Amino acid sequence: MTSEFDLIRRYFTRATPGALLGVGDDAALLQAAPGMVLAAAADMLVAGRHFSPDDGPGTIGFKSLAVNLSDLAAMGATPRWAMLALALPEADASWLRGFAGGFFGLAQKFGVELVGGDTTRGPLTVCVQVMGEVPAGQAIRRSGAQPGDEIWVSGALGDAALALAHLQRRLTLDFHEAAACLPFLHVPMPRVALGQKLRGVASSAIDISDGFLGDLGHLLTQSQVAAEIAFAALPVSDVVRRYLAQPVARECVLSGGDDYELLFTAPAARHAEIAALEEELALRLTVVGRIQTGEGWVLRAPDGTPMSVTSTGYDHF
Amino acid sequence: MTSEFDLIRRYFTRATPGALLGVGDDAALLQAAPGMVLAAAADMLVAGRHFSPDDGPGTIGFKSLAVNLSDLAAMGATPRWAMLALALPEADASWLRGFAGGFFGLAQKFGVELVGGDTTRGPLTVCVQVMGEVPAGQAIRRSGAQPGDEIWVSGALGDAALALAHLQRRLTLDFHEAAACLPFLHVPMPRVALGQKLRGVASSAIDISDGFLGDLGHLLTQSQVAAEIAFAALPVSDVVRRYLAQPVARECVLSGGDDYELLFTAPAARHAEIAALEEELALRLTVVGRIQTGEGWVLRAPDGTPMSVTSTGYDHF
Repeated sequence: MTSEFDLIRRYFTRATPGALLGVGDDAALLQAAPGMVLAAAADMLVAGRHFSPDDGPGTIGFKSLAVNLSDLAAMGATPRWAMLALALPEADASWLRGFAGGFFGLAQKFGVELVGGDTTRGPLTVCVQVMGEVPAGQAIRRSGAQPGDEIWVSGALGDAALALAHLQRRLTLDFHEAAACLPFLHVPMPRVALGQKLRGVASSAIDISDGFLGDLGHLLTQSQVAAEIAFAALPVSDVVRRYLAQPVARECVLSGGDDYELLFTAPAARHAEIAALEEELALRLTVVGRIQTGEGWVLRAPDGTPMSVTSTGYDHF
Repeated sequence: MTSEFDLIRRYFTRATPGALLGVGDDAALLQAAPGMVLAAAADMLVAGRHFSPDDGPGTIGFKSLAVNLSDLAAMGATPRWAMLALALPEADASWLRGFAGGFFGLAQKFGVELVGGDTTRGPLTVCVQVMGEVPAGQAIRRSGAQPGDEIWVSGALGDAALALAHLQRRLTLDFHEAAACLPFLHVPMPRVALGQKLRGVASSAIDISDGFLGDLGHLLTQSQVAAEIAFAALPVSDVVRRYLAQPVARECVLSGGDDYELLFTAPAARHAEIAALEEELALRLTVVGRIQTGEGWVLRAPDGTPMSVTSTGYDHF
């Protein structure tokens, strides 16, 4: 019988030079740098819901951290520490090794240190909590959008959802198309660098995890404003564009979820500054609409008529 | 269909005057007071393992926070914020109301604010992460025990495990005995005030969650010292004492787990100071042994002979 403590030590204990005290005591001890406030977020991923139990453990490890870093990115925060709570049906060393590989691969890319957590037996469930820093007063909230602001989206929308639709046989991609979309589903790259660059520039931001329209709705509600969106302006990949005539693909773009792109707003006067980030970050940044007074959103077809949309997000219940 | 967002808003959104930004954005924004460092811990509770799915939701809500506050107590930290990730088989309003009642009942007692989290559908799993503050340099670690230090235990050992043994029919308590023990299993009270009083007094501390001997072992390993424990000195309730002739009750005391008492060490010169806390906190504090050079522990029977023990902790795998 391998001990829980041995397993944790073997796979999840890494150096934590950025913490006063890391894994191994009753609690971790952390200190934000002077002038910084702490940004903290947590997400729980359940087998069969947020990932397939058949997904490779590396993918699950990567994604469980990525979705949390995406939340910090949307606040403009610099990620620093993470805690990991893991329920596993069995203590399988090769699974743990794979999971740790995916988790720490991404953690190291962004300088995130694992400082604590918990491991227990149970249905496969991953709960990650992340903590980052943002200069006092500079966090980007959902509530700051102003009428007249441009609405931006990073990257492209719908690839992850299209890949899932393919896996669920709601649509059939060819080999090359599937190969192009699947990484967006399995190893989404959180827009951490973009979030930090948007401090002092963006008026509001949210990460697109539950679908573009659903998350747009949250941002509008919290900012108490409305939005007009041009469907034709929404950034999509070549693969997604090829299927746009099919309702399932349009739904992937509008409300598919799992994009982990940033949706943000900024005054039109900051347009050039933001556009310059495209090249600096090698990341597509697209204006998809404009903030208006009022409430709710209107989605305009290329001919200017409002499009009706049935599903507006990915609600967990 | 009730929306996840509605459910979260209804039951888990409370005022968070101690946070810069609470529930409702991509991340919470928090700031430790000047001169304080952050202590952070996380625990995951799985139905059928850490609690019975038949336990009342209030009990589950209370205990999921209590076990985390116990970790902060062992560091000498003052609890401030919590994040809650919850997987539920179904979105049941009455269950959520009960859970929130237990969770916030305890949270309010210690001034803990719920600042974020996640809710999703899945096998009943509760993951709580807590953050507290401790003055820089004053956190109590597991690694500070010194030869000659007295070893203390708060409260009494074994009541929670005895209650569980009763529920599992490994032993039969009468009605009054069960009524006396069950609260220790279902609504353990974290020793938060004691932990804070021990700053600058205790040389090391750990909370007893996995069983006295197992957690003592962790403390000794991290402090690189040994311990001699007098079995007769271990604090037990009248109910536990009544069953001590039975091996199952001795096992409850030594390695039953779920005590959530503090095990701590301090120089003998601090004895009177600690003893004075008994009255101040209305909490039994007992010297159970002494730290020595070497490694491991020896448990002495009343006649001075070493007792042999088979099970030394509650290991999750």
